[in-house]
Amino acid sequence: MPEEGVLSQIKRFLVGHPIPSHLAHHERLSRVTGLAVLSSDPLSSVAYATEEILRVLVIAGVATLSFASPIAVIIAAILAIVVFSYRQTIHAYPGGGGAYLVAKDNIGSTAALIAAAALLIDYVLTVSVSIAAGVAAITSALPEWHLNRVELAVGFVVILALGNLRGVRESGRIFALPTYFFIVSILSLVAVGAWRVMTGTTQPLPPPDDPVHVANSGLTLFLLLTAFSNGCTAMTGVEAVSDGVPAFKPPEPKNAAATLVMMACISIPMFLGITFLSQTYHVIPSETETVVSQLARGVFNGRGFPYYAVQAVTMLILVLAANTAYADFPRLSSIIARDGYLPRQFMNQGDRLAFSNGIIVLSVFAILLLVVFGGDTHALIPLYMIGVFVSFTLSQAGMVMHWRRLRTPGWRSSATINGIGAIVTGIVLLVVAVTKAHEGAWIIMLLIPVLVVFFRVTHKHYRAVAAQLTLTGAVEPEARRHNTVLVPVSGMQRAVVRALDYAKTLSSDVRAVYVDVDPAATEQLRRDWDKWGRGVPLVVLPSPYRSLLEPLLEYIEQIDATRSDDYVTVVLPEFVPARWWHHLFHNQRALLIKGALLFKPNTVVTSVPFHLAR
Amino acid sequence: MPEEGVLSQIKRFLVGHPIPSHLAHHERLSRVTGLAVLSSDPLSSVAYATEEILRVLVIAGVATLSFASPIAVIIAAILAIVVFSYRQTIHAYPGGGGAYLVAKDNIGSTAALIAAAALLIDYVLTVSVSIAAGVAAITSALPEWHLNRVELAVGFVVILALGNLRGVRESGRIFALPTYFFIVSILSLVAVGAWRVMTGTTQPLPPPDDPVHVANSGLTLFLLLTAFSNGCTAMTGVEAVSDGVPAFKPPEPKNAAATLVMMACISIPMFLGITFLSQTYHVIPSETETVVSQLARGVFNGRGFPYYAVQAVTMLILVLAANTAYADFPRLSSIIARDGYLPRQFMNQGDRLAFSNGIIVLSVFAILLLVVFGGDTHALIPLYMIGVFVSFTLSQAGMVMHWRRLRTPGWRSSATINGIGAIVTGIVLLVVAVTKAHEGAWIIMLLIPVLVVFFRVTHKHYRAVAAQLTLTGAVEPEARRHNTVLVPVSGMQRAVVRALDYAKTLSSDVRAVYVDVDPAATEQLRRDWDKWGRGVPLVVLPSPYRSLLEPLLEYIEQIDATRSDDYVTVVLPEFVPARWWHHLFHNQRALLIKGALLFKPNTVVTSVPFHLAR
Repeated sequence: MPEEGVLSQIKRFLVGHPIPSHLAHHERLSRVTGLAVLSSDPLSSVAYATEEILRVLVIAGVATLSFASPIAVIIAAILAIVVFSYRQTIHAYPGGGGAYLVAKDNIGSTAALIAAAALLIDYVLTVSVSIAAGVAAITSALPEWHLNRVELAVGFVVILALGNLRGVRESGRIFALPTYFFIVSILSLVAVGAWRVMTGTTQPLPPPDDPVHVANSGLTLFLLLTAFSNGCTAMTGVEAVSDGVPAFKPPEPKNAAATLVMMACISIPMFLGITFLSQTYHVIPSETETVVSQLARGVFNGRGFPYYAVQAVTMLILVLAANTAYADFPRLSSIIARDGYLPRQFMNQGDRLAFSNGIIVLSVFAILLLVVFGGDTHALIPLYMIGVFVSFTLSQAGMVMHWRRLRTPGWRSSATINGIGAIVTGIVLLVVAVTKAHEGAWIIMLLIPVLVVFFRVTHKHYRAVAAQLTLTGAVEPEARRHNTVLVPVSGMQRAVVRALDYAKTLSSDVRAVYVDVDPAATEQLRRDWDKWGRGVPLVVLPSPYRSLLEPLLEYIEQIDATRSDDYVTVVLPEFVPARWWHHLFHNQRALLIKGALLFKPNTVVTSVPFHLAR
Repeated sequence: MPEEGVLSQIKRFLVGHPIPSHLAHHERLSRVTGLAVLSSDPLSSVAYATEEILRVLVIAGVATLSFASPIAVIIAAILAIVVFSYRQTIHAYPGGGGAYLVAKDNIGSTAALIAAAALLIDYVLTVSVSIAAGVAAITSALPEWHLNRVELAVGFVVILALGNLRGVRESGRIFALPTYFFIVSILSLVAVGAWRVMTGTTQPLPPPDDPVHVANSGLTLFLLLTAFSNGCTAMTGVEAVSDGVPAFKPPEPKNAAATLVMMACISIPMFLGITFLSQTYHVIPSETETVVSQLARGVFNGRGFPYYAVQAVTMLILVLAANTAYADFPRLSSIIARDGYLPRQFMNQGDRLAFSNGIIVLSVFAILLLVVFGGDTHALIPLYMIGVFVSFTLSQAGMVMHWRRLRTPGWRSSATINGIGAIVTGIVLLVVAVTKAHEGAWIIMLLIPVLVVFFRVTHKHYRAVAAQLTLTGAVEPEARRHNTVLVPVSGMQRAVVRALDYAKTLSSDVRAVYVDVDPAATEQLRRDWDKWGRGVPLVVLPSPYRSLLEPLLEYIEQIDATRSDDYVTVVLPEFVPARWWHHLFHNQRALLIKGALLFKPNTVVTSVPFHLAR
C-alpha cells in the first residue's frame, strides 16, 4: 500500500480499518440486534408522539386533553394495520421491499420516484426529529442546557455520522443495549404508573411553570384531525424493517417479519400507556419539559434515580433511532443511483461497506434542518409526516397491484390486507396534508416534485451518455498512430529536465516549445539548451502580443493542420508543493493551458509531478 | 486560433481585443494626457480636503472654522516641498522611481517592503476614498440618492475595473477631458467667488439643515493637529507621476517633471481658493451636502447650470482619480512579484498589456472598504493617510541616501531638498499616527507589518523552490527509458477504447487494469475484450475489500518494485460534459485516482478527454 496522506490517516483513525468482503455476511442482524437497529425509530417515537397530540389539543383548553386517549387508540389500530400490511411486503420482497422498489415493480417509474423522494426526505427528518427529541429529553432533566440545544443536537449528528462511517456491525452492537434499556424503562414507568392508579396513590402534577400557549379557541373537527395527524408520528419508521430484510440472518424474511411484529407488540403498549397515564397525572405540555419527563417525575415521585434513568435511556434511544435513517438513506440512495436516477457517487461503496456519500449528505441536511428549526421537535413534525405517509400509501398500493398481477394462492386476502393498509394510510396522508400544509408541510410538498425532476434529469443525462458510449453497432475509427509531444518551457530548470525525460518515453517526436517575449532570455535559454535539453529540439515561437498562451495554441493548430493521424500531447511540469497553501504560488500557467485545450479533440494535457520538499 | 469558450468570448466583449506589443509605445502619455491620468488624484482631492479640515474644526464650535485658512497655507507649503522633492526623484529614476524602488536601492529590503505594503494599501484607499467622495458630489446635487450611495460607489468601481482591463491607451483618452473640465470649473468657481468678495456681493450661506455634530469642546492643540492631518489628504497621489515616468513620451523625465510642477501650480490655488471662500461664505460641514457643493450654491446663487456643472465634473474627476490607482497598483504589484515578494500571478501580463490580476485584486478590496465603511469619505480618510505618508517619508529618506552615495555634482543641495522633504513628511506621518490611530489608522498600522511578513514568506518560498530547481552544479539522474502505461477499465465502452488507442501511442507496454468486484461482470468484460480490447492485455485484479482504488494502487507498487528504470503512467478517460453542472455526474473516480497518486514519484496520471455532446 502506498504511503498514506494525512487525510487518509485521519480517516482511518475516525472510521477504522476496511473490512474484507468475505466477512460481509458476519455483519447480518439477528432478531435481537435487528429490533435494536431497525426498530428504534418506531419504538422511540413513543417518547414524543403523546406530547404532539397534547400540544394540539391544549390549544382548545386544558379540558380538551381528555381526547388524547381515543385518538391514541385509533392511531394504535392503524399502526397494527400498517404492520400487518408490511408483514406481507417482507415475504413478497425477501430482497428488501422498500416503497421505491415496490412502487417501481408494480406501479411505474413516476410513482417509484415520488416514493424515493418522499423516503429520502423522510430519512433526513428521522434524524432531525429524533435528535431534537433526544436533546429535549436531556434538557428536560438538565434545564440549564436548554439554551444550547442546537449545539447539542448537531454534536449528536456528527457522532452518529462518524459511527456509521465505521460500518454496520459495530452499529448493531452499540445500539442493542440502549434500545432494550429503553423498552424496560418505559414499560416499568407504565407498570408503576398503572399500579399506582390501581392502588389509588396517584398525585396529579401541578401545572408547569411555562405551559404551551393555550388559546381556549374551542374544540373543532380540524383541531381533532390536527392532533390525530401529529400523533401519527408514532408510526414513523415502521417500513425500516421491510427495507432491511437482507440485513437479517437467514431465513431473512421470517426473522424480519418476526422482528416487525415484536416491534408492534412493544410499541403499542408503551404509546397507549404513556398517553393514558399523562391524563391521569394531569400532564400539561410545557415549553421546556417533555411530557415523558413530567410523567416520570409524577410516577417516580420527583427527580430520583428512576427519573434520570428514564430520561437518559430516552435520550439514548432517540439519538440511536436516528441511526435507522443511517442504515436506510445510503442503502436507498445507492439503489436509486444504480437505476441511474442519482449521481454515481451514491453508488460507490466506501472501504467499510458503508455508503459514505449517503451518510455525509444525510448528516448535512439533518444538521441544516436542526439549525434552521432551532432544534425544536414540534416545529419539525409537520415536515416529517408528509414523506412518511406518501411512501406508506404508495408502498401498500403497489402491493395491491403485486397480488393482482401474480395471483399466487391466497392472493385475494393478501390484496385485501394491503388494500386496507393503502386506504387507511392514504386517508391519513390527506388529513396530514390538509391540517399541516400551512405549518411547513408545504416545503415537503414542493420538495418532492423538485426531487423527482432532479431524478429524471439525472436519468436522462446518463442515458444520453450511455448512448454516446455504447459500442453496440459502433464502428470505432482507426487508431491514430502518431503522437506529437510538446513540452512548453519557460526557462531552464530541473522540473523542465524531468518533464523532457518523461516526454521522451512517450514518443520519438518530442519538441520543446518556448515563447519568445524577451530576446535576451531566449538567447540564454538557447545556450543552456545544449547542456540540459536532453537532445530534444527547441522550437521558439514569436509572440507579437506578448501573450504566452496564444502562440502555443496556434502552434498546436499548425501541427493539427499538417497531419491527420496524430495526437498532440502537451507535457507540463506540475509542482506538488509541500504545504497546501503553497498552491497559491504555482501552476497558474498549467491551469490556463489545460483550460484552453480542454475542448480540443485529440489533444491531451499531461502533468509530470515535481515534488517540492519545502 | 482554437474555438473560443464562452468565458473567453465574454472577456473579449468586455475588455476588447489584444494589442500587439510593437504598438505598445504608441500608448505613451503626453504632458497633457499625463496630467489627466496621473494627476487626477492630487487635483481631485481639493474636492474633499477643505471639508476634512472643517469637519474637525467644527467639533470645537463654529467660531474655530477660521483656523482652516492658516492650516491650508501650511499644507500648501508642504505640498510644494514634496513636489520639489519628487521632482528630483523623477530625474534620478527615469525608469520610474516609486517609493518601493527608491527604498530598495538606497535603504534596504525591509524599508522597501514597508513602502510596498504602504503603497498597495494606499492605492486601494485611493480608489475607495475618491469614489466615495465622487458619490458624495452626486448625492449633494441629488439628495434622494443619498441612501443608495454604497450601490453607486460599487457600480463606479466595477466600471473602472472593466475600463482598465481594456488597457492604458483608452484610459488616457477617456480621462483627459473631465480632468480639464474640473480644473476649469473649480478655477472659475474660485475666480467668480473671489470677484464677488472683491465687489462685496457675497452673501453668507444659511447654516445647513443637518450640520455635522458640534461638541463645542474647546480648541486644543490635538484638535488643530487632527484638522491638519485631515487636510494633508490634499497631498495624496503626488507620487503617481514619479512612479509613472516610463509611461510618458520621450524625453520621459523632463515631461514627467513638468507634469508634476503643472499639477502643483494648479492644485494649490484650487485648494487655497476653496478653503478661503468657504470661510467667507460661512460654509458649515453637513452630513448630506459637501462643502464644495455648498460653496458652489453660494457663489453661483443657487442650483443653476454652473452649480450642476461643478458637481458633475467633481464627480467625474473623483471617479477618474481612482484611476490613478488602477495605473499604479498593477504596475507596482508586478514589480514586487518580479522581485519574488508576491505570487507570480501578479507578474503575468494580460492580453491587453494591463495587469489583470492586480486590477481585480484592487477592485475587490476597494469594494470591500466601500461596503464596510458605508461609502463614507470621512470614515475612510483616517485609514488613507498612514500609507501615504509612510511611503512619502521612506521615498524621500531613500533619496537622501541616494545623493550621499552617488555624490554627483550638486549632490549636497539635492540631498538637502530631499532631506527637508523627508523630515517634513516624517513629522506629518507622526502627527497623523498620533491623531488618527483611534479612528481606524490602527488597522493600517497592523496591516503593513502583516503584508511585510507575507512578502517575506513568499520570497522565502520562491527562493527555496529556486534552490530545488536550479541546474547549476546539478547532476541529473539518467533518464528513465521505460514507461509502463496502465489503463484502468470499469467496463467496455467508447471512452475506454479511445483511452486504449491513445495509450498505445505512448508505450509498447500498455496494460488494461480491471478490478473484479462482481464475477459475472468480469466474465462479460473478458468476452467483450477480444472484440474491443485493441490488442491490449487485460489484467484482472481481485478486490477482497470491494475497494476499486486499493488494488490498483497495490498493482502500481508491484510494478515499481519489479523495475527501477521506468515510469508508470495511468491513462484515464475524462468526460468533458456539454454543460458545466454535468461535472456532478462524472469523473469522481478519476479525481480519486489522481489524488491518491499525486505524491508518488515517477508516476504520472493522464486524462484523455472524451467530449460529451449532450
